Amino acid sequence: MTRCRFWRLDRHPEGNTDFARFLSLQEEDCAPLADGEVRIATEWLSMDAGTRMWMSPRTDGYQPPLPLGSKMVGLVLGRVIESADAGYPVGALVRGFGQWADVATVVPALTGLEVVDETVADPRQHFGALGMNAWTAYVGVKEVASVKPGEWLVVSAAAGATGSLACQVGRNLGAKVVGIAGGADKCRYLTEEVGVDMAIDYRNEDVDARLAEVPGGVNAFFDNVGGPILDAVLGNMAHYGRVAVCGMVAGYDTDAPMPGPAKFDQVLMRRLRIEGFFIPDFLHRGAEFMPQLREWLDAGKLAVRFDETAGLENVLTAYERMLTGKNIGKVVVKL
Amino acid sequence: MTRCRFWRLDRHPEGNTDFARFLSLQEEDCAPLADGEVRIATEWLSMDAGTRMWMSPRTDGYQPPLPLGSKMVGLVLGRVIESADAGYPVGALVRGFGQWADVATVVPALTGLEVVDETVADPRQHFGALGMNAWTAYVGVKEVASVKPGEWLVVSAAAGATGSLACQVGRNLGAKVVGIAGGADKCRYLTEEVGVDMAIDYRNEDVDARLAEVPGGVNAFFDNVGGPILDAVLGNMAHYGRVAVCGMVAGYDTDAPMPGPAKFDQVLMRRLRIEGFFIPDFLHRGAEFMPQLREWLDAGKLAVRFDETAGLENVLTAYERMLTGKNIGKVVVKL
Repeated sequence: MTRCRFWRLDRHPEGNTDFARFLSLQEEDCAPLADGEVRIATEWLSMDAGTRMWMSPRTDGYQPPLPLGSKMVGLVLGRVIESADAGYPVGALVRGFGQWADVATVVPALTGLEVVDETVADPRQHFGALGMNAWTAYVGVKEVASVKPGEWLVVSAAAGATGSLACQVGRNLGAKVVGIAGGADKCRYLTEEVGVDMAIDYRNEDVDARLAEVPGGVNAFFDNVGGPILDAVLGNMAHYGRVAVCGMVAGYDTDAPMPGPAKFDQVLMRRLRIEGFFIPDFLHRGAEFMPQLREWLDAGKLAVRFDETAGLENVLTAYERMLTGKNIGKVVVKL
Repeated sequence: MTRCRFWRLDRHPEGNTDFARFLSLQEEDCAPLADGEVRIATEWLSMDAGTRMWMSPRTDGYQPPLPLGSKMVGLVLGRVIESADAGYPVGALVRGFGQWADVATVVPALTGLEVVDETVADPRQHFGALGMNAWTAYVGVKEVASVKPGEWLVVSAAAGATGSLACQVGRNLGAKVVGIAGGADKCRYLTEEVGVDMAIDYRNEDVDARLAEVPGGVNAFFDNVGGPILDAVLGNMAHYGRVAVCGMVAGYDTDAPMPGPAKFDQVLMRRLRIEGFFIPDFLHRGAEFMPQLREWLDAGKLAVRFDETAGLENVLTAYERMLTGKNIGKVVVKL
């Protein structure tokens, strides 16, 4: 009988810290595999802000809240150890939505499970330059924000996993890029490793005043946070500017909805387009983006810094680092 | 020497009533016509909510505020009486942005002046089914809100000039239509003349509860008002819904920006698209929409009710009727 250690959601968390009050590490015997299921020995876990919403009792979110008592859900990378789906043979390296667990049991069609390319030297890149953060960056910058060469793109949470990739996708598509992040270390990372044209430290600088320096105004905004930073960008958009709403981290730690953007009237005044999009919607399009992302990765044009933690027992610490912005780059946990 | 009677903007108005405190009727000799100018004997004036912004001192609006002491600007229909532009010969019936005046002097290229089709039986239709409100309705419903057959379209200020046309464009394109308006008379007009599938009286009904009746949620929203009605619709959108922001009448009477939509987080949760657009941006595309609009008009599929006032001296009364929603249909002034 396979044993499984996993994080269980016991109560709905408040805030973005002290998750140990709300989740507990449990162990159980795995149930026999049902028809169509696949069992994975997890090697890596991806920490993603979007999963915070699943812990909330809000019913108007992306999807129904995770019932209390469930295994916490997240992206996993690992090897198939038992399979009732011929498309995912034992031994295959796979990635998809599983559980915060050393053994994840999934229904491939419901969780976007994919067999990944074993020729990629660093398997963490399946959560990095070739993963959902990268697809999100690519779709958000190219399709939702419709960034064109020579335009000015602003990215919030720019030192995070998705943000740092969005900056680089923008630059690779010929845009000028402004990255907004908190603290001097992150801004140095943006300037020196990510390669932005301007870095704004929202903790120590007046974001509104710095954005006013953008010549002609901001053409596109890839927004991960919402709240006051969205307000500042809306006040500095060019006419016909586009906002791709990828996340609203500013509101994830509260069950109450955030107030709407203070400068919403600019939508009319400057004929802006604001569009929400959501990583899991692009699961099925990953293969389409892969050749371009792989080419950029191999050419050194998609640099990803990993923020790595070891051990299933340390998942909550890694998750908190990511949610509170202590990380630079992509937060992963090695099991 | 041609004399000209006109409304002069003396002070920035507050609110949407008592405009006589802020504008005055003046008379002067017209200056000799400059190169490229055209002089028009105005026969009809169109009253449009969008012009309220020009009276405001806000510099972050659609365009710079109208300087105090200027002639108030608005859409006019009339005959050319003097011309220094060969494209607009004396005697031609023309429409474009002119002044609230019995004689309007314009530079055609700057004001979207067009020679209109004299075969249209009712000249008011150049402000109605064939005018900018209709182009706005058509672009907003078809292009910005991307309404498809079988979808549910909601229109606010639905008994107004643009709103009633947006309802009919939606219906003509095969959508189900919900019109929101204030009062039983307007709702009867929507049901009996405009032909909506559901009318909601926001003064006497719970808009949120009524919208919850829409099967599957609202796919598209043509919004003229913003504010609490936008909040109610955002809470009842289907996934991948589109909001075409045509106006924010709820905020026009104040110089302070409106608060952002309370349910803005639904942009992310339901992957919505919100896009602002603006009538004058479509001046140059009028000809493109005209065949379809003319066909619908001739087939009785674009019914316009006119709310008519006579005399230049009564312009402010007509304007207030329109801004405060006392009108049903298109407000025009006959000179």
